[in-house]
Amino acid sequence: MSQNIKIPESKLPRIVIVGGGFGGLQLAKHLKGAPYQVVLLDRHNYHTFQPLLYQVATAGLEPSSIASPFRRIFENKTHVIFRMAEVQEVVSERNMLRTTMGDVPYDYLVLATGSKTNFFGMKDVERNAMPMKTIAQALELRSMMIQNFEKAVSLDEKSEEKESLIDIVVVGGGPTGIETAGALAELKKHVLPFDYPDLDLNMMDIYLVELGPRLLAGMSQQASDKSKEYLEKMGVHVWLNTGLESYDGYRASFSNGKTILTTSLIYAAGVSGVVINGIDSSVIARGQRIAIDGNLRVKGYSDIFAMGDVASFIPESTAVPLPMVAPVSMQMGVYLAQWFKKGRPKQHHAFRYYDKGSMATIGRHKAVVDLPFWKTQGAFAWFVWMFVHLMSLVGFANRAKVFMSWAYSYLSSDKRYRLVIRPHRKEREPMSREPMGV
Amino acid sequence: MSQNIKIPESKLPRIVIVGGGFGGLQLAKHLKGAPYQVVLLDRHNYHTFQPLLYQVATAGLEPSSIASPFRRIFENKTHVIFRMAEVQEVVSERNMLRTTMGDVPYDYLVLATGSKTNFFGMKDVERNAMPMKTIAQALELRSMMIQNFEKAVSLDEKSEEKESLIDIVVVGGGPTGIETAGALAELKKHVLPFDYPDLDLNMMDIYLVELGPRLLAGMSQQASDKSKEYLEKMGVHVWLNTGLESYDGYRASFSNGKTILTTSLIYAAGVSGVVINGIDSSVIARGQRIAIDGNLRVKGYSDIFAMGDVASFIPESTAVPLPMVAPVSMQMGVYLAQWFKKGRPKQHHAFRYYDKGSMATIGRHKAVVDLPFWKTQGAFAWFVWMFVHLMSLVGFANRAKVFMSWAYSYLSSDKRYRLVIRPHRKEREPMSREPMGV
Repeated sequence: MSQNIKIPESKLPRIVIVGGGFGGLQLAKHLKGAPYQVVLLDRHNYHTFQPLLYQVATAGLEPSSIASPFRRIFENKTHVIFRMAEVQEVVSERNMLRTTMGDVPYDYLVLATGSKTNFFGMKDVERNAMPMKTIAQALELRSMMIQNFEKAVSLDEKSEEKESLIDIVVVGGGPTGIETAGALAELKKHVLPFDYPDLDLNMMDIYLVELGPRLLAGMSQQASDKSKEYLEKMGVHVWLNTGLESYDGYRASFSNGKTILTTSLIYAAGVSGVVINGIDSSVIARGQRIAIDGNLRVKGYSDIFAMGDVASFIPESTAVPLPMVAPVSMQMGVYLAQWFKKGRPKQHHAFRYYDKGSMATIGRHKAVVDLPFWKTQGAFAWFVWMFVHLMSLVGFANRAKVFMSWAYSYLSSDKRYRLVIRPHRKEREPMSREPMGV
Repeated sequence: MSQNIKIPESKLPRIVIVGGGFGGLQLAKHLKGAPYQVVLLDRHNYHTFQPLLYQVATAGLEPSSIASPFRRIFENKTHVIFRMAEVQEVVSERNMLRTTMGDVPYDYLVLATGSKTNFFGMKDVERNAMPMKTIAQALELRSMMIQNFEKAVSLDEKSEEKESLIDIVVVGGGPTGIETAGALAELKKHVLPFDYPDLDLNMMDIYLVELGPRLLAGMSQQASDKSKEYLEKMGVHVWLNTGLESYDGYRASFSNGKTILTTSLIYAAGVSGVVINGIDSSVIARGQRIAIDGNLRVKGYSDIFAMGDVASFIPESTAVPLPMVAPVSMQMGVYLAQWFKKGRPKQHHAFRYYDKGSMATIGRHKAVVDLPFWKTQGAFAWFVWMFVHLMSLVGFANRAKVFMSWAYSYLSSDKRYRLVIRPHRKEREPMSREPMGV
């Protein structure tokens, strides 16, 4: 029998939020003053600003710029109790969560567990490609790419092995894919020639491979066209209508019959929800997302809710699930907090998503922005992108740091964080005997 | 047969420097303009400012503040060729180094490989204690300590397990040990009460254990006494004349008959030189240091030199080897560069070490400084310590960053980098088939 996690006693009903991503964080913050005990669980001790992960992977930002410790975020918000734990199972008939740190009883449970990389069953790709959903993965990617270059510069001229070390393939033409490919093209132009003067960088090819007929499928046709144009101008080979078929860590084969030799394949072609064991399989919809009703309640459960990437919310107007993006999660967090604050009325308007637009950046002075009544691309769009992302970063200190990093890199084209920091291997077990989140 | 690492051809004689620590870096920089091809090898792609590692471990600085990529350092110094490789063996009869990246022929070889933690044969301590000689180790230490606190806060009141998670033992009363213990005491006072309001921090004990009769044995008696006084004022239990006898990851036993239950034992009680295979064992002196002559030449070799921590240089005046500290390494680097630049004269004055003094910091406004004609302790000493360390940091950008981090933490007492970032585990092999430096 495992013990309960120690949480201060309270007579208030307890809301347990699983996951401190954009949605979970908004919910926790907005529950301030509400008559509930709010417990936030996360396997990390920090919130990750995921839209800028690609900057960590490409040495433009350091991890601490996009990570904010939860205990710091909630330092003056004593209504939230944070516990670092990885949830293993929900036992809904007993209103109980099982976690790596012990059990947690709840009155209301909110699943905000987010999404993970979806390899669509391609085991070889899962084993050999590099995903980019966590800070640890982004750091690993950065270290791997630098190590490959260090190895390439030590090898004799022109060989298949040498090409494979410096060619990079990005699979997936969504925002993460195009932002990563763009950042790599900038590294190739502004940083690598100075770092590796004795390496012929004409040998270096960057590929962006997308299964569908256009990049940024969630945005306007203009944005798709312009982002492709920008990337190609920056020297990226863009392949549309092309699927990855296999990858053994060295040879990547595609549906267009072509093969690329590369040791760096970045996989950003799909995500699926992170569903906790114990949720009835009948409510798990396409992409491992949990079907919820208009009030974000998991279908068939009275006191379990789901929000953000892991939730499949289908507005009546479109009959298509809302996209897995930060604004949806954040609006759901605010909505749910209000519903709880109002005393959980049985009759309450359904959640409505206000699409304020979307944007992506390809490189310096190159971004695409779709607003409801205006679409723009280029330098102004890039400034809009910078402004919005800076303003959205959690915590003032991070904002100032990222701003300074960006100002510096804007003026200098330098990428300061090109450090290979690989894990310190230790034979001993980590001190907690149970597995902990990365 | 392994291939040579590719290095641009040159008619100049080649100096290969193994290790880009303080000494190797000075040597490489000062060889500018000399008629040699300079090749610098290091297992990391960055120089580590080791004196501030303890700040990374205690969440006061982030890794990039004390790490400078070599390719950045040498961006405008084209006389140095950097290769990231771990040296495996020297084959002196063929003037050849074997490395993880291939072979490297040399005309002159300079060993600046530094030192590693010395556990004096205590296998259990080596397996279970945390050393702090690399950035990866400092990060691991930081993550472990935070995870322990996260676990402790989830446990019921007062238990042996809970105590063991929050008590910390630092073994070794040299500069690293006292600086770490001091930084931990500041965390306990200024950060942890806010991060863990539901944890009774009176339970938390910090121990500093030293085998000898005083702290900072390399400094003046005044510095030793004052640092002990500061630490005890800050709540650290200082045990002198006490040796660590065993540690199984939970129970640490000491020569004074006492036992401490702790999952965090930081080991900073000794170092030994990192000697490369192939160097004749007859020249390896106490502490795995290589015996060198007055011109830093390894005894019995005509074209192999050693400097810094790995070198045992015995001045005639004292008959005691010079200490393993950064100033010795740096002065040796400058000396050797001058000797090479002068055309390697057979008659050349022997290396002389100018001891400009030493210093250590215990906490805010608490440092000890020994200068040749003046010893001081307290707030002024602390400002001197700050100034010297800032000025010594490699590269302007890092200096500005560290300064801002320190200014911020001075004003706020915050420790911003309390992030648990554990390695991203991947089943696949790293792309380079040979082992790479961590």
